Amino acid sequence: MKILLINPNLTQPMTDRVLEAAMAAARPGTVLEAVTGTFGPQVIGSRAEAALAAHSVLDLVAQHAAGCDAVVLAVSLDSSAWACRELLSIPVVGMTEAALYTAALLAPRFGLLTYGQRLLPLYRELVEAAGLVGRLAAMGAVDVTPEETFDDPEHVLAAVEAEALRLVSQGAEAVVLAGAAMSAMAHRLQPRVPVPLLDGVACAVGLAETLAHQKWTRPRTGSVSGTGGRVVHGVSPALQNLFAQR
Amino acid sequence: MKILLINPNLTQPMTDRVLEAAMAAARPGTVLEAVTGTFGPQVIGSRAEAALAAHSVLDLVAQHAAGCDAVVLAVSLDSSAWACRELLSIPVVGMTEAALYTAALLAPRFGLLTYGQRLLPLYRELVEAAGLVGRLAAMGAVDVTPEETFDDPEHVLAAVEAEALRLVSQGAEAVVLAGAAMSAMAHRLQPRVPVPLLDGVACAVGLAETLAHQKWTRPRTGSVSGTGGRVVHGVSPALQNLFAQR
Amino acid sequence: MKILLINPNLTQPMTDRVLEAAMAAARPGTVLEAVTGTFGPQVIGSRAEAALAAHSVLDLVAQHAAGCDAVVLAVSLDSSAWACRELLSIPVVGMTEAALYTAALLAPRFGLLTYGQRLLPLYRELVEAAGLVGRLAAMGAVDVTPEETFDDPEHVLAAVEAEALRLVSQGAEAVVLAGAAMSAMAHRLQPRVPVPLLDGVACAVGLAETLAHQKWTRPRTGSVSGTGGRVVHGVSPALQNLFAQR
Amino acid sequence: MKILLINPNLTQPMTDRVLEAAMAAARPGTVLEAVTGTFGPQVIGSRAEAALAAHSVLDLVAQHAAGCDAVVLAVSLDSSAWACRELLSIPVVGMTEAALYTAALLAPRFGLLTYGQRLLPLYRELVEAAGLVGRLAAMGAVDVTPEETFDDPEHVLAAVEAEALRLVSQGAEAVVLAGAAMSAMAHRLQPRVPVPLLDGVACAVGLAETLAHQKWTRPRTGSVSGTGGRVVHGVSPALQNLFAQR
Amino acid sequence: MKILLINPNLTQPMTDRVLEAAMAAARPGTVLEAVTGTFGPQVIGSRAEAALAAHSVLDLVAQHAAGCDAVVLAVSLDSSAWACRELLSIPVVGMTEAALYTAALLAPRFGLLTYGQRLLPLYRELVEAAGLVGRLAAMGAVDVTPEETFDDPEHVLAAVEAEALRLVSQGAEAVVLAGAAMSAMAHRLQPRVPVPLLDGVACAVGLAETLAHQKWTRPRTGSVSGTGGRVVHGVSPALQNLFAQR
Amino acid sequence: MKILLINPNLTQPMTDRVLEAAMAAARPGTVLEAVTGTFGPQVIGSRAEAALAAHSVLDLVAQHAAGCDAVVLAVSLDSSAWACRELLSIPVVGMTEAALYTAALLAPRFGLLTYGQRLLPLYRELVEAAGLVGRLAAMGAVDVTPEETFDDPEHVLAAVEAEALRLVSQGAEAVVLAGAAMSAMAHRLQPRVPVPLLDGVACAVGLAETLAHQKWTRPRTGSVSGTGGRVVHGVSPALQNLFAQR
Repeated sequence: MKILLINPNLTQPMTDRVLEAAMAAARPGTVLEAVTGTFGPQVIGSRAEAALAAHSVLDLVAQHAAGCDAVVLAVSLDSSAWACRELLSIPVVGMTEAALYTAALLAPRFGLLTYGQRLLPLYRELVEAAGLVGRLAAMGAVDVTPEETFDDPEHVLAAVEAEALRLVSQGAEAVVLAGAAMSAMAHRLQPRVPVPLLDGVACAVGLAETLAHQKWTRPRTGSVSGTGGRVVHGVSPALQNLFAQR
Repeated sequence: MKILLINPNLTQPMTDRVLEAAMAAARPGTVLEAVTGTFGPQVIGSRAEAALAAHSVLDLVAQHAAGCDAVVLAVSLDSSAWACRELLSIPVVGMTEAALYTAALLAPRFGLLTYGQRLLPLYRELVEAAGLVGRLAAMGAVDVTPEETFDDPEHVLAAVEAEALRLVSQGAEAVVLAGAAMSAMAHRLQPRVPVPLLDGVACAVGLAETLAHQKWTRPRTGSVSGTGGRVVHGVSPALQNLFAQR
Repeated sequence: MKILLINPNLTQPMTDRVLEAAMAAARPGTVLEAVTGTFGPQVIGSRAEAALAAHSVLDLVAQHAAGCDAVVLAVSLDSSAWACRELLSIPVVGMTEAALYTAALLAPRFGLLTYGQRLLPLYRELVEAAGLVGRLAAMGAVDVTPEETFDDPEHVLAAVEAEALRLVSQGAEAVVLAGAAMSAMAHRLQPRVPVPLLDGVACAVGLAETLAHQKWTRPRTGSVSGTGGRVVHGVSPALQNLFAQR
Repeated sequence: MKILLINPNLTQPMTDRVLEAAMAAARPGTVLEAVTGTFGPQVIGSRAEAALAAHSVLDLVAQHAAGCDAVVLAVSLDSSAWACRELLSIPVVGMTEAALYTAALLAPRFGLLTYGQRLLPLYRELVEAAGLVGRLAAMGAVDVTPEETFDDPEHVLAAVEAEALRLVSQGAEAVVLAGAAMSAMAHRLQPRVPVPLLDGVACAVGLAETLAHQKWTRPRTGSVSGTGGRVVHGVSPALQNLFAQR
Repeated sequence: MKILLINPNLTQPMTDRVLEAAMAAARPGTVLEAVTGTFGPQVIGSRAEAALAAHSVLDLVAQHAAGCDAVVLAVSLDSSAWACRELLSIPVVGMTEAALYTAALLAPRFGLLTYGQRLLPLYRELVEAAGLVGRLAAMGAVDVTPEETFDDPEHVLAAVEAEALRLVSQGAEAVVLAGAAMSAMAHRLQPRVPVPLLDGVACAVGLAETLAHQKWTRPRTGSVSGTGGRVVHGVSPALQNLFAQR
Repeated sequence: MKILLINPNLTQPMTDRVLEAAMAAARPGTVLEAVTGTFGPQVIGSRAEAALAAHSVLDLVAQHAAGCDAVVLAVSLDSSAWACRELLSIPVVGMTEAALYTAALLAPRFGLLTYGQRLLPLYRELVEAAGLVGRLAAMGAVDVTPEETFDDPEHVLAAVEAEALRLVSQGAEAVVLAGAAMSAMAHRLQPRVPVPLLDGVACAVGLAETLAHQKWTRPRTGSVSGTGGRVVHGVSPALQNLFAQR
């Protein structure tokens, strides 16, 4: 089984980190291919950058999905997840939705923790769109830049731990670590926190393997059925072809 | 006062129609500039096309918003509305959100009517994101292509009337006509339907004029505050500049 | 265009203040008439007083709405807003609903701030009735009497600023200032608060102008359509006539 | 124990009918006093009439509540229920809220049935305000005037039965009969309908007796605590006194 | 009238305490029979113990409900309430749902207070299942074991008072004391807390008396109608008979 | 990897059918053990039978979970799922929750289809408890007994197809087939229905394999953490031991 990991921003080290997390989570026999965006934001830290990333995700699947059995969106806002499902006949799983549904199987109510206050409202919108806001106990952010975490100093870890414990005190019985940078921290942080810490990449790889194995029928009607035969302009030939396919 | 109307798809006749509706709705003294997308979908009829349109909207505001007092998104999925608010210091109003909030001032519960079953779930998601799903009485679609409506034959009108009356029978006390093509029908259809029919372009022009007149402060913190100084690649120089501005 | 401002309590200085705020917000050419209640509560600070004010609002529109193009309810509980819509053929806009829908166009999630803990639950009920509770980040009250604020001492301003900043820290990306007394503070407070502060009277005047300009059809069926020909007793002749009209 | 039944409209036969239903439901030893409005609407069939009734209810409790142990609002929109709780130190129960909470104890999901499409949205708002909209399976109306039902012809009964069965088919496991006129039909209709039919007056009398017996403490803080010492003008002396009391 | 009180755990002192509270709340002429579980958990402090208690409740009603007019579930998780309604033709009232609906008649928004953080999520699920989560202002727990409270030392009372006041400060206008152990504290605590403190057993006895008096029809269709003629194995003969009855 | 399938009712043919479906869905190398209840209901068709099944599930996991890597609850009401999570240190997945979360990854809105109107409200409660009611487009039931379906006549298939298509017409973009009997129909029915039909057993086996592979930490605090050292009486020694374990 081959899974495509999409990192729509332009940061290769982030792609490397995501691939490493995915490899640790994948089952034996799963092949992983990780690709990095070729245009759009250097990092995704705002709504406008996320809008560009949505295009970038489509471009990357157009270039690389052929021959794959599933796609994992290694972008914490799950950009273009439903759009990809329209265009592709293989399963597509976003890393944050994957963590949310996994959390829902482990804990009656859960929290979500990320780097940076600015994106918290966007994550809340993701939880609402997933339909799970009634099971969200609390959210929190640690104001660290993604870049700082590459060094992963102990004080970052301590700050995240403190925030995770605050979420637990507010009723979180599991905690989703949102953002590829934060996901990578799950293993080191878990011993310090008394509830499961969910890494989106690991969750998404697992669900993608499962959906690919189960081979659910693709909808032939409705808002995620294939469109086919659509004309788009000014985008890459690969993406034009993907829209044109029937 | 100058308002920029954004049509992110590539269909100039749709831009013309939207401009006509906007001029009919605008106050004396309001100047309108309507622009059409230069890349992306010919028409927006799917989630994937909407994802491209989100980029196209940003590109158009980057090219044309300078010197304007407000932006109206003449795209019925309100694509990139919040992203535009991040990037611009002038008010931005989507045509469907405008119709929804106007409906909320006229009727305790309202309906939404559009062309094509396929987009109904996306409109429902818009209503949910607006926070107004509790006031949505019913939704309906008439399966007519946007193109067919340019001729506006009587049988299209009759089909829309029938569906509007069905929504009324399910409790709609106003009806949002979603989609630029359908909005244009409001005036002809109104005499046949006993509740207000809301045209998104007219609603959006009115709200844009109002917000521009009121000059509310732009947020300096939070998820729609200006980012500033951001680096993006592979997009138009105008859009790169807009992201880079502080 | 002529807009009627209704202050259903008996406090003329409040009417004066509301009129001043409305004049500052109105467009050139808009004529404003502000009227004060002739019976009922001196000020509205409880549910029972609001119930009397609901009658007072109807009485005032019966006396003064003839010849007007729109009504603004300059009472922060939007008392009788839907009842007025039944009785009148012109648009009616409540000051708090106006601020809420304006906030919804400016910020993904917003807060609400008022004087006095006692009315907070009523404002929450207004937000719920508007359908926007999912977008309410936080609410807060500063325990100052409306009267005290007429002097507007610096310490009141400081207390309101502190509470506004608390709401921002809880996720509010705009703040509705509820209550005519507090609305008046928006201009002075805005420089100290990093998100838009929404004054209900200004919002309502803008929306009333817009709705009056757009001339939406009045519903001819449903719960806000005209009743007509109804008999009521023991109220003012003007109000009896309004109920009797067809 | 003495319970005051408030009918805020001016229709004495409705008061008589309500009193009869209340007497049938009351326990031995409960004394009932039923009073009729002295101003306001002849019947309550619109939002504006309900606004006047809210004042009328307060006036009636001011005139008659002294010496009573509880108040039942025999008005199907539960007008002024919370306002009465502010003003009085005895329990107050609205007939529709009583039926809703009773339904919630008998059936996982329930329906609501009334005369007249026009008021359906208002009943939905009552269910939402009660917090029970998640348990509402369906609503329906039979377009019969309250007056017609006084004769109670067989065809009215048949129409109501048909609508009740429709609600059952949509998942209602109990049905609230909303409106005093319809409540009176419960006994005759019950044998034809396979789920409990809830008469608001009977439910309210039972809950009022219970609350009066249990003597729960009245809140001394919050939005339903006594205000006391309030000045209101232009209303009956009894109501002025009630507002002035401490 | 005879009411059966069910304590499904094995703690006779808890049954005694519940009976005492019920007797204090019951009307003259109400006969109370309190029974204690014969298998299952010693005390119910977890989800798994609650699952066993659900069986225990059914067994106890099978043994003891004959000749009774109503059942009160004196178990704070209202275990098997709907299952009992299926099996029995008399009213069944859970102590926590009773307190919630009573609170809903006394206060616009209320809080819930219990011993032990662990069960808070389960109480939240009860409030959600009741449909009243929109009216829940806040929840809180005092970490005291039920056993400790039998001595009822002053410091327990002080801790509960402090938590109750915290809930009031967060908008609770009434407080449900959840759990039989905590309910018993209502009378002593009430003078210290400015909003009504609701004891579940008292509320349930009152509602059970009321429902039994009103003799609502039992549903003959739907998910709480009698099943009848069902075969179950390996449970007490009394319970087998109850399932087998038609 | 070894997965335990729990069928808490006493119908061995149902266990056999579930095992067959599970084997078809499992990955190579997964070992499946399916066990049948030893007491409680013959089939689960009511709330009271589900209450007994909750005990039966606990008894079966106590007897058989040792040495397993995950548990699948092959009972469509997911009875005791959270209780099992408290008691066990391995993942537990209910068949209906598994289908719901899988549906949420495949379709923006989905439907649920089962045999028998009676259980529809219980499935709705499951969807609400899962937090996904906002994504439920419609529900439906075909009134066929589980037994009849063992023969699987063509007319049953046709009835289910018709109901599935009705759900699609109401907006379902995937359909959960609830109940072990109906799940078995997925493969034969899929070619006739244009959206994915989700078989709960297959979904649950896939998620159980995934969770077992990922080895998420078990919560050490909160409402699903291990209780340990609890005393229960009158249940099987195996279950007593499971409660007593630390």
